[in-house]
Amino acid sequence: MDVKIALIGKGNVGTKFLEILCEKDNFLKTKFNLNIIIVGIFEIDGALINKNGIDLVEVTDKGKNFRELTYWKEGKKAIDLISKLGINILIETTPTNPNTGEPALSHIIEALNNNIDVISSNKGPFYLKYNTIKNLSREKNCIVKFEATVASCVPILSIKRSLIGNTIISIRAILNGTSNYILSRMSAEGIPFNLALKEAQELGYAETDPTLDIEGYDAAGKLVIIANELLGYSKNIKDIKVRGITNITPQAIELAKSDGYVIKHLAICEVEDNTLFVEPRLIKKDSPLNINGTLNVIELNTKHAGSIILMGRGAGGSEAASAVLNDLIDIAIKRGYSI
Amino acid sequence: MDVKIALIGKGNVGTKFLEILCEKDNFLKTKFNLNIIIVGIFEIDGALINKNGIDLVEVTDKGKNFRELTYWKEGKKAIDLISKLGINILIETTPTNPNTGEPALSHIIEALNNNIDVISSNKGPFYLKYNTIKNLSREKNCIVKFEATVASCVPILSIKRSLIGNTIISIRAILNGTSNYILSRMSAEGIPFNLALKEAQELGYAETDPTLDIEGYDAAGKLVIIANELLGYSKNIKDIKVRGITNITPQAIELAKSDGYVIKHLAICEVEDNTLFVEPRLIKKDSPLNINGTLNVIELNTKHAGSIILMGRGAGGSEAASAVLNDLIDIAIKRGYSI
Repeated sequence: MDVKIALIGKGNVGTKFLEILCEKDNFLKTKFNLNIIIVGIFEIDGALINKNGIDLVEVTDKGKNFRELTYWKEGKKAIDLISKLGINILIETTPTNPNTGEPALSHIIEALNNNIDVISSNKGPFYLKYNTIKNLSREKNCIVKFEATVASCVPILSIKRSLIGNTIISIRAILNGTSNYILSRMSAEGIPFNLALKEAQELGYAETDPTLDIEGYDAAGKLVIIANELLGYSKNIKDIKVRGITNITPQAIELAKSDGYVIKHLAICEVEDNTLFVEPRLIKKDSPLNINGTLNVIELNTKHAGSIILMGRGAGGSEAASAVLNDLIDIAIKRGYSI
Repeated sequence: MDVKIALIGKGNVGTKFLEILCEKDNFLKTKFNLNIIIVGIFEIDGALINKNGIDLVEVTDKGKNFRELTYWKEGKKAIDLISKLGINILIETTPTNPNTGEPALSHIIEALNNNIDVISSNKGPFYLKYNTIKNLSREKNCIVKFEATVASCVPILSIKRSLIGNTIISIRAILNGTSNYILSRMSAEGIPFNLALKEAQELGYAETDPTLDIEGYDAAGKLVIIANELLGYSKNIKDIKVRGITNITPQAIELAKSDGYVIKHLAICEVEDNTLFVEPRLIKKDSPLNINGTLNVIELNTKHAGSIILMGRGAGGSEAASAVLNDLIDIAIKRGYSI
C-alpha cells in the first residue's frame, strides 16, 4: 500500500537514503507491497513539496541542483508542515545540536503529537530526552525507531527482540570510531596523541573540533541509548561518567603492550551496580573488543550464553541510510502497510 | 496466558532449558503475561506426562532421578503423543542422526501436521529437508524457529528482521568451534594437526569421531541454514562443496603467518554466483574473522553498510537453551499469547 513520508535533512544520510530508496523501489513493491511516496524533503532554507510524490530519480540526480526544481519552496519550514502533509512516517536526519537536540527534538515531538511514526538518525534527542520521547510515543501509540543513532547499521537496538529472553549482565563497547582510530594509530606507530589526532583530521575521521569524540561524550550518548533500549533504563547523558583519551601517552600504550594488553576507549554498563561510564581501559590483546580503525563493536555479556558481540562500521552516510531503511520496513510490517 | 509445551529430549540442552525456564518463570509471567506449562518431557525410553503442568523445580532437581517421579510413563513415545497433549508449541532437542535428521524430523513434521508451532535446536532436519519443513509450516500456518541450530545463541537467523532492507553480497563465517580450536592451537603452538586434535578431544571440544567437524560437514549444514534463512535460498547440504582441515600442516600455517595471514576453516556463500562452500582459507591476521578457540563468527558483507559481524559461543547447553527461550518468547509475541 501507499506509505507517505517526509524527510527532514538532505545531507549525507538523507541523500543516501533517497538513493537507496530509489534503487530498492522495485524490491519494496514486490517483496513488501510497499509504495513509498516521499511528499516532502526539508532543508534548512526551504523544502521540496509534492503531495503526489517527489520523483526520486530527479531529486537524486547529482547533475541537478534540487533547489532549482519547480516544486522547491523557498523558506518552507518542516516544523510548520509536519502536521499538514498527511504523512505516515517522518524521517529525521538533520545535523543536531549536541546540547539541545535541536532542531531534531522539536521535529520528533511535533510528529508524535500528530500521531506520526518517526525514524531518526539523530542521537541528540535520545540521549537528552529519551523519556519525553518514549512517553509521548506510548501516549500517542506511535512507533519511534532510531537504529542509525548507534553504530549506524549494526543492529544493536533491534537485536533486543532476538535476545529478549537473555539476561544481560554487562555491556562493553567501542562506539566512537575517531577515538578508536587515534588509539589504534598510536599503538601501531608509537606516535603521540596529537600527531594521531592530526592524521585523523587530515583523513576526515576527526572533526576540526574533536572534543565530543576524544573526550568520550559521543560514545556516552550512544551508551545511554543502548542501555535505555536493551536494559529498560531511563538514563540521560548527564548520568554517565566520562573520561577522555587526551592524556594517553605512547609510553602507557607501550607498557600495556609489553604485558599483552591494548588501551581502548570503552563505553561500559555494569548492570549489577547500575553504572555507566566511558573511559580508557586495558583489554587483552586477543579480546574480540580489540578492533582497529574506525569500526564499532558492542559486547553483550549475558548470563546464560556468554558474550554476544556485534561489530561493523560505526559511521557513514550509506550505512546510516541503510539503518533508516531497515527501520522503515520494520514500521511498515508492524503497521500492516506491508500486506 | 497459558502456553502448553512439550519438550522432546532431556539431554544437555533440554535440561538447561528447563532450568532457565524455572529461573525466568516470574519474569515471563510479569513481563510477558506468559504462564508456560510443560505438559510432557520425552526421553528415548519414556516420558514425564502431566496435563496440569510438570513441576519444574522437581524435575530439574539434580538430586532426584526424574525416571522415579510418579508421572514417569515408561515406554511412552513422543511421536505417538505430540497430537494428543493439547500443546501450543513443541520443543525438539533430541540427538539427531546427521544423515537422516531423525528422530527430530518426524517429530517436527508430526507437530506441523497437527498445527503445532515448533522450536528446534536440531540442525539435521533443516539442512536436509528445509523445503519440506518450510512448505508444511506455510501450509499449516505454523511458526518454526531454530535459532539454536547455528552458533547457538548468536542471533544470526533472527537478525534477518533487523537487516531486512540490506542487500547481502556474501557471507563468510567460522561455524565450527572444534576445527577452529584445532587451527588456533596449531597456529599458536606450531603443533601438527593430530596433536591439536588429540588435545581438543581430551578437553571435550572434539568428539571421539571428529569427522563431521574437521571435514567441514557440520559447518556446511549451518551454512545451508543461514543462506536459506537470510537469502531465501532452498539449498540442502548436498549443494555445498566441502573441504576439511586434516591436510593443513604446521609448515603451511607458518608460511601464512610470515606473510601476515592465518588459516581458518571458512564457510562461504557468494551471492553473485550462488555458490556455497566450506574450506580452509587464508585471512589477514587483523581480520575480525581471526577469532581463536571455540568461538563462532559470521560476517555479512552488505552492499550499503560494509561488513556486519556477529560473534559468540557456538555451542553449549545453556547457550542453546537460551536461544530456545528467545524463540519461545518470539512465538508467544507473534501469536498474541503475550498480552
